[in-house]
Amino acid sequence: MTSASRWSSPWWLHATAIPDFRSEQGALARQNELTKPPGSLGMLEEVAIKFAAWQGQVKPQIQLPQCVVFAADHGVVAQGVSAFPQAVTVEMLKNFIAGGAAISVLARFHQMGLTVVNCGTAIPCEYLQGVIHRPVAAGTEDFSLQAAMTNEQAQQALDIGAEIIDQLEVGSDLFIAGEMGIGNTSAATCLAAMILDLPATALVGPGTGVTGENLHHKQQVLAASMRRAKEFVESPLQALEQVGGFELGAIAGAYIRAAQRGIPILVDGFIASTAALLAVQLNEGARDWMLFGHQSAEPGHARVLEALDAEPLLQLNMRLGEGSGAATALTIVKQALALHNEMATFAEASVSGQHLVSEAE
Amino acid sequence: MTSASRWSSPWWLHATAIPDFRSEQGALARQNELTKPPGSLGMLEEVAIKFAAWQGQVKPQIQLPQCVVFAADHGVVAQGVSAFPQAVTVEMLKNFIAGGAAISVLARFHQMGLTVVNCGTAIPCEYLQGVIHRPVAAGTEDFSLQAAMTNEQAQQALDIGAEIIDQLEVGSDLFIAGEMGIGNTSAATCLAAMILDLPATALVGPGTGVTGENLHHKQQVLAASMRRAKEFVESPLQALEQVGGFELGAIAGAYIRAAQRGIPILVDGFIASTAALLAVQLNEGARDWMLFGHQSAEPGHARVLEALDAEPLLQLNMRLGEGSGAATALTIVKQALALHNEMATFAEASVSGQHLVSEAE
Repeated sequence: MTSASRWSSPWWLHATAIPDFRSEQGALARQNELTKPPGSLGMLEEVAIKFAAWQGQVKPQIQLPQCVVFAADHGVVAQGVSAFPQAVTVEMLKNFIAGGAAISVLARFHQMGLTVVNCGTAIPCEYLQGVIHRPVAAGTEDFSLQAAMTNEQAQQALDIGAEIIDQLEVGSDLFIAGEMGIGNTSAATCLAAMILDLPATALVGPGTGVTGENLHHKQQVLAASMRRAKEFVESPLQALEQVGGFELGAIAGAYIRAAQRGIPILVDGFIASTAALLAVQLNEGARDWMLFGHQSAEPGHARVLEALDAEPLLQLNMRLGEGSGAATALTIVKQALALHNEMATFAEASVSGQHLVSEAE
Repeated sequence: MTSASRWSSPWWLHATAIPDFRSEQGALARQNELTKPPGSLGMLEEVAIKFAAWQGQVKPQIQLPQCVVFAADHGVVAQGVSAFPQAVTVEMLKNFIAGGAAISVLARFHQMGLTVVNCGTAIPCEYLQGVIHRPVAAGTEDFSLQAAMTNEQAQQALDIGAEIIDQLEVGSDLFIAGEMGIGNTSAATCLAAMILDLPATALVGPGTGVTGENLHHKQQVLAASMRRAKEFVESPLQALEQVGGFELGAIAGAYIRAAQRGIPILVDGFIASTAALLAVQLNEGARDWMLFGHQSAEPGHARVLEALDAEPLLQLNMRLGEGSGAATALTIVKQALALHNEMATFAEASVSGQHLVSEAE
């Protein structure tokens, strides 16, 4: 791996790939020749044009989509901020590889590769076959009391993401990051709040099911964590150190590396989008390779999307994570490309074009 | 066909099928046992539960979805309310059966049956193989000057829809109606305005691409048509006669018959939703069998959906018709069922459940 040495610039600052403008223009021209009123396929047209730019061909295709679920635990759950016990992180890792989790079902549905990475669970699980084990530590520290991780651990988390992208099957043409980690909605909330310079209360929500008194308590814990951490944060990396999580860092690293390698990214919900926000803070070129799959029910997501100038394909009121929202959106992308590639043009089908002069748009 | 005789009640008033409450409850219970926080799959959970009620089984499946495109022409285009010439209706029928239209591509993508029905095109096209020909007339009359059709023609249009549903392949388990007809956004706008007792200006939009001065002209033509027609309309059927279209009537008839036969309906955009509104006005039981696929960019659609208390699965800014929005949403339905049927339960996967007491929702 290419961790930053003392003198060279760290890998995550290296330039990202450049989408192909000529293919983008070719795809736009093609959209306007297909047998439909121009623009009438809405976001499906935009998706096809983006993929043309990303793949450098006027008729892009997705052959080998890949989903990687990054899992880790969070010390802050000691404060009672999650509806589920910490044991669930490892239990769900087993469920992912056994095929019973939502993302497992969706990966089968799409014949999509599914990789599971242990970035640091509280309960050791190295015995689990079929999981890539890269534990940074046995979960982060409780960030309501101290930094979640050291600077070295933050860099290690980013490195895991890059390593995983470098190991993807040759020809992988779409990357979805999922996450699993009891308490990671709390970490993402504080990380996003720190980057956006907002109070945690502007972003906090129920996560997987914290309501009523428990939600009020969660708000207080996160607000106190922000007060503790704020003075130590003067860079995106320091935000990750103070209030982040290993899986959040790994996903940010994976996004940056995917952008450097020219692999399109389909971003999942609130937690993945917060990692995307971190990635773009570290290297703004990463944004050029991102498409957003699903607007989460978690209230903080809208703020993060706004900061990223992102409009997700779906709004299905999901709030599960694991990459499930992005995976659900994958069929929208596939249909966008099928329409773009397979529809007849006006000339091919001998269909008459528009005849009124359109005076305004 | 079973047209209304003078003494029997017309077929479209006959009772619709009753969704199965016990299977619905069973599916709800199953959703709460799957390895995810309850409710975290959002609308995907609701979709699976609805299909359980519709199919009368806790684990529903879609095996044989069917799309039928109903096409017809509209006399009101003589007033210059559409961006495309009327010849396009028949040209697009050819494109549908040749496989080059958006709905053709999506039908292939989903391995979905595609049937095309000529309900009355302005240019005769009976020579076209692969189209079911049931022309009521060579397009409607210009409804800015007189009724679009007679009472008998309106009933004939409804009958076409019922006939098509009766002819669907045995085992068809999902019905999508598409439409094609230059000028049919104008007809749908007036029909919806008539039913909802709103001015046409509250609903009118660009359709397939009318903008600027031309849009202003379209607004004036539709407002004048409403003023002319209003005094003749005292029933939903009279609204169809005065300002409707043959394909709108046929789709409404098909929806009612599908509901009578217990076939779930996935409703497309503005025009199909207006036909759904007409169907529900004629027989309110039809609403029980409808799911809505896509919120159109056409401004009137929001009003029609509100009247139907409907929340579509997708908002992709599409405005093409043909059934394309509903067809795009079909994969969302399929994924909802895959998740519902294939995910592991907490017990099966030995995953711990929620541990905090949730005090409020």
